[in-house]
Amino acid sequence: MQVSANQIAQLLQATIKGDPEILVNRPSQIEEGGKGTITFLGNPKYEEHLYTTTASVVILQEDFVPKQDIQATQLLVPDVYQALGILLGHFGKNKGAPQGISEMAFVNSSLDNEIHVGAYAVIGKNVSIAEGSIIYPQVYIGDHVIIGTNCIVYPGVKIYAGTQIGSNCVIHSNAVIGSDGFGFAPQEDGSYRKIEQVGNVIIEDNVEIGANTVIDRASIGSTRIKKGAKLDNLIQIAHNVEIGSNTVIAAQAGIAGSTKIGTACRIGGQAGFVGHIEVADGTMVQAQSGIAAAVKSPNTAFYGSPAIGYRDYLKSYALFKNLPTLQNKIRALEAKVKELESK
Amino acid sequence: MQVSANQIAQLLQATIKGDPEILVNRPSQIEEGGKGTITFLGNPKYEEHLYTTTASVVILQEDFVPKQDIQATQLLVPDVYQALGILLGHFGKNKGAPQGISEMAFVNSSLDNEIHVGAYAVIGKNVSIAEGSIIYPQVYIGDHVIIGTNCIVYPGVKIYAGTQIGSNCVIHSNAVIGSDGFGFAPQEDGSYRKIEQVGNVIIEDNVEIGANTVIDRASIGSTRIKKGAKLDNLIQIAHNVEIGSNTVIAAQAGIAGSTKIGTACRIGGQAGFVGHIEVADGTMVQAQSGIAAAVKSPNTAFYGSPAIGYRDYLKSYALFKNLPTLQNKIRALEAKVKELESK
Amino acid sequence: MQVSANQIAQLLQATIKGDPEILVNRPSQIEEGGKGTITFLGNPKYEEHLYTTTASVVILQEDFVPKQDIQATQLLVPDVYQALGILLGHFGKNKGAPQGISEMAFVNSSLDNEIHVGAYAVIGKNVSIAEGSIIYPQVYIGDHVIIGTNCIVYPGVKIYAGTQIGSNCVIHSNAVIGSDGFGFAPQEDGSYRKIEQVGNVIIEDNVEIGANTVIDRASIGSTRIKKGAKLDNLIQIAHNVEIGSNTVIAAQAGIAGSTKIGTACRIGGQAGFVGHIEVADGTMVQAQSGIAAAVKSPNTAFYGSPAIGYRDYLKSYALFKNLPTLQNKIRALEAKVKELESK
Repeated sequence: MQVSANQIAQLLQATIKGDPEILVNRPSQIEEGGKGTITFLGNPKYEEHLYTTTASVVILQEDFVPKQDIQATQLLVPDVYQALGILLGHFGKNKGAPQGISEMAFVNSSLDNEIHVGAYAVIGKNVSIAEGSIIYPQVYIGDHVIIGTNCIVYPGVKIYAGTQIGSNCVIHSNAVIGSDGFGFAPQEDGSYRKIEQVGNVIIEDNVEIGANTVIDRASIGSTRIKKGAKLDNLIQIAHNVEIGSNTVIAAQAGIAGSTKIGTACRIGGQAGFVGHIEVADGTMVQAQSGIAAAVKSPNTAFYGSPAIGYRDYLKSYALFKNLPTLQNKIRALEAKVKELESK
Repeated sequence: MQVSANQIAQLLQATIKGDPEILVNRPSQIEEGGKGTITFLGNPKYEEHLYTTTASVVILQEDFVPKQDIQATQLLVPDVYQALGILLGHFGKNKGAPQGISEMAFVNSSLDNEIHVGAYAVIGKNVSIAEGSIIYPQVYIGDHVIIGTNCIVYPGVKIYAGTQIGSNCVIHSNAVIGSDGFGFAPQEDGSYRKIEQVGNVIIEDNVEIGANTVIDRASIGSTRIKKGAKLDNLIQIAHNVEIGSNTVIAAQAGIAGSTKIGTACRIGGQAGFVGHIEVADGTMVQAQSGIAAAVKSPNTAFYGSPAIGYRDYLKSYALFKNLPTLQNKIRALEAKVKELESK
Repeated sequence: MQVSANQIAQLLQATIKGDPEILVNRPSQIEEGGKGTITFLGNPKYEEHLYTTTASVVILQEDFVPKQDIQATQLLVPDVYQALGILLGHFGKNKGAPQGISEMAFVNSSLDNEIHVGAYAVIGKNVSIAEGSIIYPQVYIGDHVIIGTNCIVYPGVKIYAGTQIGSNCVIHSNAVIGSDGFGFAPQEDGSYRKIEQVGNVIIEDNVEIGANTVIDRASIGSTRIKKGAKLDNLIQIAHNVEIGSNTVIAAQAGIAGSTKIGTACRIGGQAGFVGHIEVADGTMVQAQSGIAAAVKSPNTAFYGSPAIGYRDYLKSYALFKNLPTLQNKIRALEAKVKELESK
């Protein structure tokens, strides 16, 4: 597919600087470039490549001020990442969405014809999957599961009985939804007795869940991932957790049981949350931090384990690195005071 | 299923306060409640909901002293979580355990009829699975694997050849048991040569293993999970590790090679252990901590990375947060001492 | 299989001390031993077992100086782990590599006969798999995937469309290769719009990837794992990351988007890297550390979160543990200075 800079400018509502007729046929990274490709400058760390890239077209923030000449035709937009999203959606992956229900799937429910179920998928009893949804091969969907319209469930995903999933959700390979919460009652002899986990998982519309992420069913009630939340890979969501709308969680983070995360939070990779706390809307958590207590003020940033205010942590950590010097100062003071005392 | 408070009281050997004939048909969380539901107060953080819940029946610790009137019928028990376990087992998930060996499974061993094997499961040669065990769809069981009675192996679990599993074990979806340990010998040219991992994994009775958890086979000998141990989701157990009886490990923790964890330990989420150490019985490890050396005294609590005594860490961390103040004090002292010296 | 110490000595080019005719039939760990077994002393922590082991033969470093008598026949070699690799390769797992393409696989490409594809595997369109490669049951391989010679892909691995894998690679169960990178553009209403991930994953020769590890496809271009890199279990590799040749990464580590790790690095378990940085060759990262900035000097060791120099961290952490004492010293100084001032 060949398109001109001019055609893309119209798609992105961009201003052109340079040759509007130059043709491109695929996107590239700015450090790779290549004739016939379109690239972008998002992160300013890559600015140096802007002046040497061999890409034919480059998308730039409209208020960007270049320090040198740029060879490529420029498309100026108010929001580079926004434009990039539109552009890549346009180039697409050319998936050619699969259709129909494979004869090699094991289906125990009466399903809508307007969906796809791939080979070796297993669909339990009383399952409902709405039109446009794609269930890839080797997926397991337990009894009484409900899935909305236009979802994509990638190969190997396992969805336990009773799970409810909204519309326009994407679930990546080998994610597990609805496994038992980790609930055990200690017995007098030191062993543990399993507490049956009789709740379920509810995933609202427009949620994306990464590969190998696990979301446990509630012990009672529901574990809930609210509308528009985005979860990366290898995340642990324990029983009875709630993740707020439009909250974004990076890979390998973990949320312990019954904790409720607010809306529009941004959680870094490998961060952890203790159980049974509420976390205010807009909370930001630095990677590897551990939230050990409720967060009451919205839009606050945290760092450390246990986490404290982001700037406080950086200040204390700067002094932590400097502790040998502080110790030397104390020793010097002790010597001087001793000398003063002896006078 | 409708049952009266009185019937439940008999099941739980509880004392009733209130209407013994009131009927319930499902469990609820205390903050949700609802007429016809039975709830409980476990964690005292939820006490406020006790006085406003619309649940019909509530289970309470027998020595609990309410601060206000309670509308619900009360069932007083010596151990709320114990009672809850019994109650939820009673309500159950109504699974209606599946039976028989699916014609759509690929089975290379002669199996007992009293087990279930689901669609698209693969069972290797010389596999033995004892009565009452349920192998869900899409499970892989390699050659020479032995599985005891009444185990549940959820969809997508992969069990490599030679693994031995006891009775009454539960393994959640997409867990991997018996993958190669991470063993490589550095070569002169900087590359690594794989060290064959010829050992296996042994899982004793009453063990539960969470979704997407990985337990590597031993290089030589066995990686061993002892009786009654409970492992949450996304845990890494490296080659030749031993996990002691009744030890509980929260999600995303990792144990490096050849480390031996004692009995009845409690390991927090995202905690890590270096390889080749022994950890005493009853050790408690705070979430995100890193155990970097052998633990010799039993029943000790640890925190930090590298971990130190739990209280020591909290004391030091309190001062860490206060380092800017300590620095100011040192500066003030330096100024004063300078002044004293100049006199 | 029975072999004599003498035969093994020839295989390993070892010097014998003791009975060259003594027979062994399997390897053992030194603390287990057993007549008819061959063991080794690798880690000096296990030296005490050397003098009591009941193994018939023991492999030792040729410059090792025993402190007591050793009963077992000794094989002295220049590199114990090297020798162990050769020995275990010799005992092998007796796998008897499976052959042919299962009739119960769903294959949409014309495949070489000299490969194995197991039951319930799904192979997409235009897939190429070179001779000697083994695709275990329940693996998913998307369209246009290329796999080189002599690879082993264990049960349940999911490989998305467009992935390229070299020769002699091993991928363990339920690993996911080529899932979408975590890319979303914030919208004005607080929701996120998915940025299509149109790149792929390239894995070069001799790479090993652990169970449940995830490697995301690039947004544009390629995520790349270079020749000879070894990745343990449950690792997160984000979009557009590059892992250098012969770099070794322990379990549960995570690398954020677009970061480039050099060659021959050694990364500890649960370590994390921020996105968009370059990390020099030979960098060593202690377990649980967080690399928050580019690393420019090669062969440097790091520790802490955010990570600093390994020794600097240990020095500061020693004083961190000692902060209560430092505080007491400051208080004592304050009291003394006050007294001096009042004179």
